[in-house]
Amino acid sequence: MLNRVRSAVAHLVSSGGVPPPRPKSPDSPNANSAQPASLPEAPKSPPARSGSGSGAPAKTVETRTSFSRPTFLQLSPGGLRRADDQAGRAVQSPPDTGRRLPWNTGYAEVINAGKSRHNEDQACCEVVYVEGRKSVTGAPKDPSPSQGLCFYYWGLFDGHAGGGAAEMASRLLHRHIREQLKDLVEILRDPSPPPLCLSSTPGASNPSHLVAPQSCWSSQKEVTHESLVVGAIENAFQLMDEQMARERRGHQVEGGCCALVVIYLLGKVYVANAGDSRAIIIRNGEIIPMSREFTPETERQRLQLLGFLKPELLGSEFTHLEFPRRVQPKELGQRMLYRDQNMTGWAYKKIELEDLRFPLVCGEGKKARVMATIGVTRGLGDHNLKVCSSTLPIKPFLSCFPEVQVYDLTLYEHCPDDVLVLGTDGLWDVTSDHEVATTVDRVLSAYEPNDSSRYTALAQALVLGARGTPRDRGWRLPNNKLGSGDDISVFVIPLGGPGSYS
Amino acid sequence: MLNRVRSAVAHLVSSGGVPPPRPKSPDSPNANSAQPASLPEAPKSPPARSGSGSGAPAKTVETRTSFSRPTFLQLSPGGLRRADDQAGRAVQSPPDTGRRLPWNTGYAEVINAGKSRHNEDQACCEVVYVEGRKSVTGAPKDPSPSQGLCFYYWGLFDGHAGGGAAEMASRLLHRHIREQLKDLVEILRDPSPPPLCLSSTPGASNPSHLVAPQSCWSSQKEVTHESLVVGAIENAFQLMDEQMARERRGHQVEGGCCALVVIYLLGKVYVANAGDSRAIIIRNGEIIPMSREFTPETERQRLQLLGFLKPELLGSEFTHLEFPRRVQPKELGQRMLYRDQNMTGWAYKKIELEDLRFPLVCGEGKKARVMATIGVTRGLGDHNLKVCSSTLPIKPFLSCFPEVQVYDLTLYEHCPDDVLVLGTDGLWDVTSDHEVATTVDRVLSAYEPNDSSRYTALAQALVLGARGTPRDRGWRLPNNKLGSGDDISVFVIPLGGPGSYS
Repeated sequence: MLNRVRSAVAHLVSSGGVPPPRPKSPDSPNANSAQPASLPEAPKSPPARSGSGSGAPAKTVETRTSFSRPTFLQLSPGGLRRADDQAGRAVQSPPDTGRRLPWNTGYAEVINAGKSRHNEDQACCEVVYVEGRKSVTGAPKDPSPSQGLCFYYWGLFDGHAGGGAAEMASRLLHRHIREQLKDLVEILRDPSPPPLCLSSTPGASNPSHLVAPQSCWSSQKEVTHESLVVGAIENAFQLMDEQMARERRGHQVEGGCCALVVIYLLGKVYVANAGDSRAIIIRNGEIIPMSREFTPETERQRLQLLGFLKPELLGSEFTHLEFPRRVQPKELGQRMLYRDQNMTGWAYKKIELEDLRFPLVCGEGKKARVMATIGVTRGLGDHNLKVCSSTLPIKPFLSCFPEVQVYDLTLYEHCPDDVLVLGTDGLWDVTSDHEVATTVDRVLSAYEPNDSSRYTALAQALVLGARGTPRDRGWRLPNNKLGSGDDISVFVIPLGGPGSYS
Repeated sequence: MLNRVRSAVAHLVSSGGVPPPRPKSPDSPNANSAQPASLPEAPKSPPARSGSGSGAPAKTVETRTSFSRPTFLQLSPGGLRRADDQAGRAVQSPPDTGRRLPWNTGYAEVINAGKSRHNEDQACCEVVYVEGRKSVTGAPKDPSPSQGLCFYYWGLFDGHAGGGAAEMASRLLHRHIREQLKDLVEILRDPSPPPLCLSSTPGASNPSHLVAPQSCWSSQKEVTHESLVVGAIENAFQLMDEQMARERRGHQVEGGCCALVVIYLLGKVYVANAGDSRAIIIRNGEIIPMSREFTPETERQRLQLLGFLKPELLGSEFTHLEFPRRVQPKELGQRMLYRDQNMTGWAYKKIELEDLRFPLVCGEGKKARVMATIGVTRGLGDHNLKVCSSTLPIKPFLSCFPEVQVYDLTLYEHCPDDVLVLGTDGLWDVTSDHEVATTVDRVLSAYEPNDSSRYTALAQALVLGARGTPRDRGWRLPNNKLGSGDDISVFVIPLGGPGSYS
């Protein structure tokens, strides 16, 4: 992720007072006071995988010399070196000869042009089997052999300020999701509505959800199977984030990452996004957005409200008010444009002393920042992130919760050219949804519908189209504009075959 | 507004402790720490207008016997009595013989079927002239005569727990908007971007917005004229709410109200909504939603986040967690479905003692409530609203800020059948957007395009269609379903003529 975390500049008003203590977890909106009933025993994080490509000359001083690329790329030591070469920026895809990704998913990636030592994007694509816990609903013991559930999983993780968080998330997030789904196997297999209560001890009877409502207030809200899966994904993101917090000291979980995750389960596609990656479906040429980006601009009011309700999180350096630019001391007493947590419009206010503090949210577009530091407002990790020249933590303003959108695959007849495209911001910074749709049409129509290599070719075309070619001292697109110097990663998931969805 | 405020039922867990003090204003998310530069000198609220219809037999014991209807209805004492007759429920419109409403706006209303003593809806339709303050930008004094601005204004106010707030808002909100716009007259007339700063003293020079940016952080965000109008409307809502708070003791500002306001200014239509009224545009038969409703369901996560960050606002009676129904003491230790402020999906958690508290948000649809009491989450007033059998104030959870949507009238060629329809929830509870569009087509096609009575006929048809006719011990629609027993008020604003928009 290019420039995702920017150190606060020297123009920051220096803090005159003692830095406030880091707020306790329950004060943070990200903390969940209602702990899910059981924490999964997620596998211990091993040290980051070491690639022999670490011999490449480091461009910046960095203590971490090991790095990894997704296993499914099946890179040899030489391949790993080429993938890590920021001069050549060769596009990487799974080998033709190897085992194909599930659903014939296409994948391609390229390293950044030198903004970080290694590629800080990570990816994961797995078929995950979920073994159910027994008798969670308290039903009489089923004599038939226990049956589990399978889900298909794709994840893109765009790291910043180090590759540790993205690497850890790519190894573990799907396991957290699996753990969250274990309790639900029996329930999701049963077409009747989910039970209100589970017995606390497996096998015990559970009469509580049979009790008739006793007043209008006890009338029961209907909860769908789909919303249970959404809740499982949401809690898995939180547990992943908590695991990073626990293990950050022992295992050097560096930085943070955006997470864009797709799950296919029982006929439905769940797209969960925390950060500024993006997912779109192209169906019969039509663009269907499947995610929203979470940035200081799109989450301005959430951030300002938190700063307003918990001013101690702002220290003495920041104000929750937004101004069109930094207020200058000589403007004290004048009336300047501002907006607060309740406003979408702007108005004038008289400038007071505390308005001279740095605004919590500032800048526009790719330059928008929270606390003059970070340009994304949701994701995993970042537990150590502090405002430059300060001990003020930024994490309380960041949310680890994804927004989940659901797409029912059974409601439409999909053709082989219908695809779900996932990309990190390296793709979307220089490519519009419409341009992606055009490329989908152009590339797929050049291949037979049953040619299983067409989705990888499409992913490569998208990455190449965003990277450009070296020309005029930079990577440039055909229109001579600058290509993306960021890490770029793309999944192309066919929705209409030839993949098997059983 | 029917059943908008429901007293907490006896099933509430009684508070064992001392009730918490009412939180100070700065702790409320509705409070705006950044006071607009000047408070308008809004006219003093006179006592509620007394109608001679107060002679009608009161169905419930009520200290307040006076009531009023919108001035533009030009009701005689006899007309006021008929408008207040809950047995006949005669539809009221401005008289054919009188002065027409601006733009030939159509209006109709009907009183409720007995749920409150009087009609608690109020309406206002005005052309408002804004005289500019001089030299707010510090420009040299303009030798030409000072020019102001006109805006057209329509407001619907749906009261609950008394008619005072709606009545006050219908008299004063547009004046607050006028005050907020006074500073902007000169700026809105000038096609160049709004100045960043205004001089603190009229007539003084103001060089500050000419200072060149000195770093990337001082680069200036562009603010549009449109967003200044939005900000003016937002602050006017807040100032109206603050005035109600100040005057509630002296002038008996009873209850609260939803506010749906439309302003036409310089080619654009601004629709501001705080509550559960609704505005839609019907253009060439197409439905364009112009507002969203704010209810315990649509604002669940905002409410839960506030309860989570400020648990003192929940007292010892409420929990910020949501459960599908009230948790029972015998369910302690079991695992029940829940969701918190971060979740859109559901998951299971082990029930602990504090989960036995009443949920902050409960119920579904029209029965959804905050603190078991109120069914709308935005609006004006409600400063005295408490949880039943408790001193816990509900106001901190209510927002007085509207959401403002903007429609550029100059971007389309409108025909005489294109209309903006505003209605209180009495209309929308029993009428879908699609049914409104059908009625628009049916009624308007029965009139000549230049017949100025067609929009009032349409408003009457919409109100009649939602009220129904007395049959089988109730007000019933043609399909024999129950009509709305609520107050119903409708504006129909023609967008394509024959109104003059100059």
